Amino acid sequence: MAHDTTAATAAKADRQNPSLVVTADHRIKMEEAEIPEPGVGEVLLHIRATGICGSDLHFWKHGAIGSLTVDGDCILGHEAAGVVLARGPGVDHLEVAKFTHKLPDSVSFACAALLEPLSVGLHALRTSPVSVGSPVAVFGAGPIGLLTMAAARASGAHPIVITDIDEGRLSFAKAFEPHCLTYKVDPTATPEVTANRIRDLFEREGRTAGLPRTEYDMPQLVLECTGFESSIATAAYTVRRGGCVNVVGVSSKPLVNNIPFMHISLAEIQLRFINRYHDTWPAAIRAIEGDLIERSKLESLVTDEFRLEEAVQALEFSANSHKREDGRITVKIQIVDPPLSERTRST
Amino acid sequence: MAHDTTAATAAKADRQNPSLVVTADHRIKMEEAEIPEPGVGEVLLHIRATGICGSDLHFWKHGAIGSLTVDGDCILGHEAAGVVLARGPGVDHLEVAKFTHKLPDSVSFACAALLEPLSVGLHALRTSPVSVGSPVAVFGAGPIGLLTMAAARASGAHPIVITDIDEGRLSFAKAFEPHCLTYKVDPTATPEVTANRIRDLFEREGRTAGLPRTEYDMPQLVLECTGFESSIATAAYTVRRGGCVNVVGVSSKPLVNNIPFMHISLAEIQLRFINRYHDTWPAAIRAIEGDLIERSKLESLVTDEFRLEEAVQALEFSANSHKREDGRITVKIQIVDPPLSERTRST
Amino acid sequence: MAHDTTAATAAKADRQNPSLVVTADHRIKMEEAEIPEPGVGEVLLHIRATGICGSDLHFWKHGAIGSLTVDGDCILGHEAAGVVLARGPGVDHLEVAKFTHKLPDSVSFACAALLEPLSVGLHALRTSPVSVGSPVAVFGAGPIGLLTMAAARASGAHPIVITDIDEGRLSFAKAFEPHCLTYKVDPTATPEVTANRIRDLFEREGRTAGLPRTEYDMPQLVLECTGFESSIATAAYTVRRGGCVNVVGVSSKPLVNNIPFMHISLAEIQLRFINRYHDTWPAAIRAIEGDLIERSKLESLVTDEFRLEEAVQALEFSANSHKREDGRITVKIQIVDPPLSERTRST
Amino acid sequence: MAHDTTAATAAKADRQNPSLVVTADHRIKMEEAEIPEPGVGEVLLHIRATGICGSDLHFWKHGAIGSLTVDGDCILGHEAAGVVLARGPGVDHLEVAKFTHKLPDSVSFACAALLEPLSVGLHALRTSPVSVGSPVAVFGAGPIGLLTMAAARASGAHPIVITDIDEGRLSFAKAFEPHCLTYKVDPTATPEVTANRIRDLFEREGRTAGLPRTEYDMPQLVLECTGFESSIATAAYTVRRGGCVNVVGVSSKPLVNNIPFMHISLAEIQLRFINRYHDTWPAAIRAIEGDLIERSKLESLVTDEFRLEEAVQALEFSANSHKREDGRITVKIQIVDPPLSERTRST
Repeated sequence: MAHDTTAATAAKADRQNPSLVVTADHRIKMEEAEIPEPGVGEVLLHIRATGICGSDLHFWKHGAIGSLTVDGDCILGHEAAGVVLARGPGVDHLEVAKFTHKLPDSVSFACAALLEPLSVGLHALRTSPVSVGSPVAVFGAGPIGLLTMAAARASGAHPIVITDIDEGRLSFAKAFEPHCLTYKVDPTATPEVTANRIRDLFEREGRTAGLPRTEYDMPQLVLECTGFESSIATAAYTVRRGGCVNVVGVSSKPLVNNIPFMHISLAEIQLRFINRYHDTWPAAIRAIEGDLIERSKLESLVTDEFRLEEAVQALEFSANSHKREDGRITVKIQIVDPPLSERTRST
Repeated sequence: MAHDTTAATAAKADRQNPSLVVTADHRIKMEEAEIPEPGVGEVLLHIRATGICGSDLHFWKHGAIGSLTVDGDCILGHEAAGVVLARGPGVDHLEVAKFTHKLPDSVSFACAALLEPLSVGLHALRTSPVSVGSPVAVFGAGPIGLLTMAAARASGAHPIVITDIDEGRLSFAKAFEPHCLTYKVDPTATPEVTANRIRDLFEREGRTAGLPRTEYDMPQLVLECTGFESSIATAAYTVRRGGCVNVVGVSSKPLVNNIPFMHISLAEIQLRFINRYHDTWPAAIRAIEGDLIERSKLESLVTDEFRLEEAVQALEFSANSHKREDGRITVKIQIVDPPLSERTRST
Repeated sequence: MAHDTTAATAAKADRQNPSLVVTADHRIKMEEAEIPEPGVGEVLLHIRATGICGSDLHFWKHGAIGSLTVDGDCILGHEAAGVVLARGPGVDHLEVAKFTHKLPDSVSFACAALLEPLSVGLHALRTSPVSVGSPVAVFGAGPIGLLTMAAARASGAHPIVITDIDEGRLSFAKAFEPHCLTYKVDPTATPEVTANRIRDLFEREGRTAGLPRTEYDMPQLVLECTGFESSIATAAYTVRRGGCVNVVGVSSKPLVNNIPFMHISLAEIQLRFINRYHDTWPAAIRAIEGDLIERSKLESLVTDEFRLEEAVQALEFSANSHKREDGRITVKIQIVDPPLSERTRST
Repeated sequence: MAHDTTAATAAKADRQNPSLVVTADHRIKMEEAEIPEPGVGEVLLHIRATGICGSDLHFWKHGAIGSLTVDGDCILGHEAAGVVLARGPGVDHLEVAKFTHKLPDSVSFACAALLEPLSVGLHALRTSPVSVGSPVAVFGAGPIGLLTMAAARASGAHPIVITDIDEGRLSFAKAFEPHCLTYKVDPTATPEVTANRIRDLFEREGRTAGLPRTEYDMPQLVLECTGFESSIATAAYTVRRGGCVNVVGVSSKPLVNNIPFMHISLAEIQLRFINRYHDTWPAAIRAIEGDLIERSKLESLVTDEFRLEEAVQALEFSANSHKREDGRITVKIQIVDPPLSERTRST
């Protein structure tokens, strides 16, 4: 994800390449990395903004996600946007460089670095599509939950109910997407009880008229974005009979228990699982250009910015963001280089 | 499509039922129709707004659409919304009445009478779905074209190019959906030439950079809403290889010629044809409630209103609306009863 | 499922209706049931053959399957075929009777009573379709596993590997469908180890050539027909990345544990669950008429027949069939009335 | 499509490479072609059998199919199977050579050279899938029609009705697939009349019982394998409402007329067009290995063999095969090298 600038940015003229490295023994540190020459079909990028993802914390703290393991020093950061510093042989147009998508001028670095997690949401909606006016539930109001909700909204889902155990996150979600309904999950309630309460929010006239609940109005799709066992079970009890639960969330545990097998079997519910995406970047850029997902909305997700030199502190802050005492919510932390104030000066 | 009102409207207290009738010999006339008692599971409605559809004109002027024929006197009007006057046995709740959907208070009669043509658009997007950020073309900027474009936009299509041969209709389309691009079709150009020009609008960087056109950026779906032979051929040349042309438009001619068979075969293009819809009304109401398709946007399509007593004039105006000299565009004509001013008094 | 016979069968001329009844306190008994007059759109059938299903044993021994419970005396038997004894008002042609499908003369009662479990297999292949030459695995070589394998074979699946823990069942499976490969599951092996061994059977040249395993050759679909926890986990490890596990089997336990969540997530495996079927009977009859699933093959599944008067013994035999000492395999037990020898005389 | 033989075939030890060449001015001739050295990832093949395809005749007689044109001398032949003579750098295993699939020993060259047209049939069934027991019609009993019927049969279609204007071809089709029904098209009948007669063959009990025709029993899919205008129209009138017509046939004319637009629109029929295939070869080989499509059945399609040296005569025979006076039917002509008798000696 890169802007194509002919004027080389002076910022990295000194050819430094500070990098955040995770080690096999669960430490993080800053290091100067080599600056490679771009090969055939490659470009050299100056990364201007990088989001911190839950998986970065997983690799740091647990050293693995499923079968992906940190076996030696490894540079973190995969939600990135930057500018082209140099082009390898054969790269006349940025379009032909591998793994690189040219950004329109109107898309900021902050916005561009969010295209990676947004891609997860777009992939979710491709694997479990909805039509206009389909009721949908989203479980979890973290960055992936919010971006997946944005993808669901842009796909025509309505009503959308988003859930979380944190009231602050739900307030953030409501400001982020005013058309959604929110539900605060009581962690002491059983999945069946929680599901029943969420289903109440999808009911229409039947409720007021004293009619029995209509399965027809229930969510055709539940986008489970937490990866928690109880949330997956709740999703199965929430979704409409014959509907689809798409498990977008991941877990640090390889196995999951207490899946309501016979309910899923009798209701013939479909379980999808996604983990990545492919061919989503051009669509994501078009979605932003077309205001299907608004720039300002996306940028509002970046609640905290750190300088590249403070990357270690950024990760530590991220790991402890649930403990912050100022009452604010941390959604997405980005590491920027140079930070906004300096950027204004240098570009 | 009905509001459920407990206070009976005084408007039809005199129990009149003026109806617009088309005859087998291609005349239209007003007649007093019988007022039936609602049977088991039925309701008696006072129709408050009815849109005039191209098919109404077809039945009047040609007496048939395909194998559907007018063999005797037949009451016109199928885009209708009203209030419940009386309920048949077993109808405790409006939900259980056949073919009737309860309207939320916030949906006006004008808006509600547009749910029928909107349903066509929703059905089109269900039979040929798109994902967020998919390029889509809409051919024809009449009421069905505009409503189908609204359904495509609510489904996440972008960019959207809408075409017509009339500049005024295209201006209307741009005001209706500011995110769309418009293209004025030159009726003297061949389908291949027209398609090539429309494809130019979908091109991105390649054009400015002098690169060859990228099939990847071309529309995955063309929603053909005119039913004209040359437009269907143009759609086939416009759509991305392997893409889908959904023919929503209909024709008064049973056969169509000059379909570019070998291009369609070599490019493995899929042709869909839709004519009706099913199970779209609740989704349409949810789409409006959720501002996926805005009320004011829908209502802006009603460019002309006639009183029920002037229904014959309304149809004649509709048949000649392309000749109007005031420079204004006729999109959707609705017959209302009572008209807006009187409504204010009576309700 | 009924033959339409004009000559009323003398068999039940004495108007007896012996029925196998399960009670809420887990007993089974024979009782004379009332013989109702067929109502509007109904027919009275003399049931000639009924298969015993695992769910019949579940209802008897456990009183429930998921949320379906035996709250009072309940007549067992849902895999049934018979002849029409009397027609209710409006039934001029058997085609119009509710829930009844006319059998061609060439389909025997034994065969017809197998159409119900075969429908489960057909529904499985409709919910998780394969194309010709798709590798497929079937877990469990009981009646549902065998019939689901037959449906997979008729759909074009190849190669098919069927697994079971019982060597005798696998021999039966191989005789039933000679094109299948069999694998005997070691109950002490972990799901991952078992999956790896099953995958070996799907490998082609790579194995002999010493090349690494090709994910491409792995089964695109695993039809899990046991409902056991370890088998569901094994299915997840066996299926090709991006493939589908269709859980056809059911369980007496409402929850399931040890689902390999992160493997399923990283491999983006789809989990389907089916429990019933709809609109499968005409297709099943056509499949038999067209020799897509051969009559003799189907009938070979009926390993044991009991007279209606011995229905209690049939169920007891069914519950203990794994203990039989004659070395033979019990697949499907049918209760017939009258038995084959008497049938010859009476029809 | 190649056998991987370590013993180099002596047949081409003299390093000759006779080739059938078509010219831009519509002539065919035999020429000695250069024998290239296989490059990285390539293999050098001795082609042992090549089928003549209708497109070969098109390129010869018309110089083009759609936008594919013969602009200079061009070697004909794309339905080919052979043995590996030499391997380029990096080809340790045949699996890794580009565009080459290793044949199992049990698949003959004749059979292997039919995998190309069979791939068209498999691709047709992938783009318009059927489930077991689905009624299907195939229009045209030439090589593509027969192979597409074989793919439909292997996918579970039944009943299958195949049509042609030639009685001899229909007899061949019935011997090729005894479960099919045949219908001889009267070229003087209208598409609607022909369609109605074909539909009669799909009717079941309704016909004998004097009931009105049931749309339910009509073919869900018509595989149109002729490319003729009247046949495409007939397909549209034949298919079940809401069903699919897959146009597999191609034409030498770029446009098609007299498509029954309004019938297709009102019945919401889907038109698919295929021209090629991708990723079908491994599936085709598996289908043959698994007897889903029997070897002997496939080989029976090769009605005529010519030596490579007689390739010009083979094409001339192919172009005039409809005129043969011995009453036999020409289905597939293969050019073999060396011919069968010599092969026995040399291998």
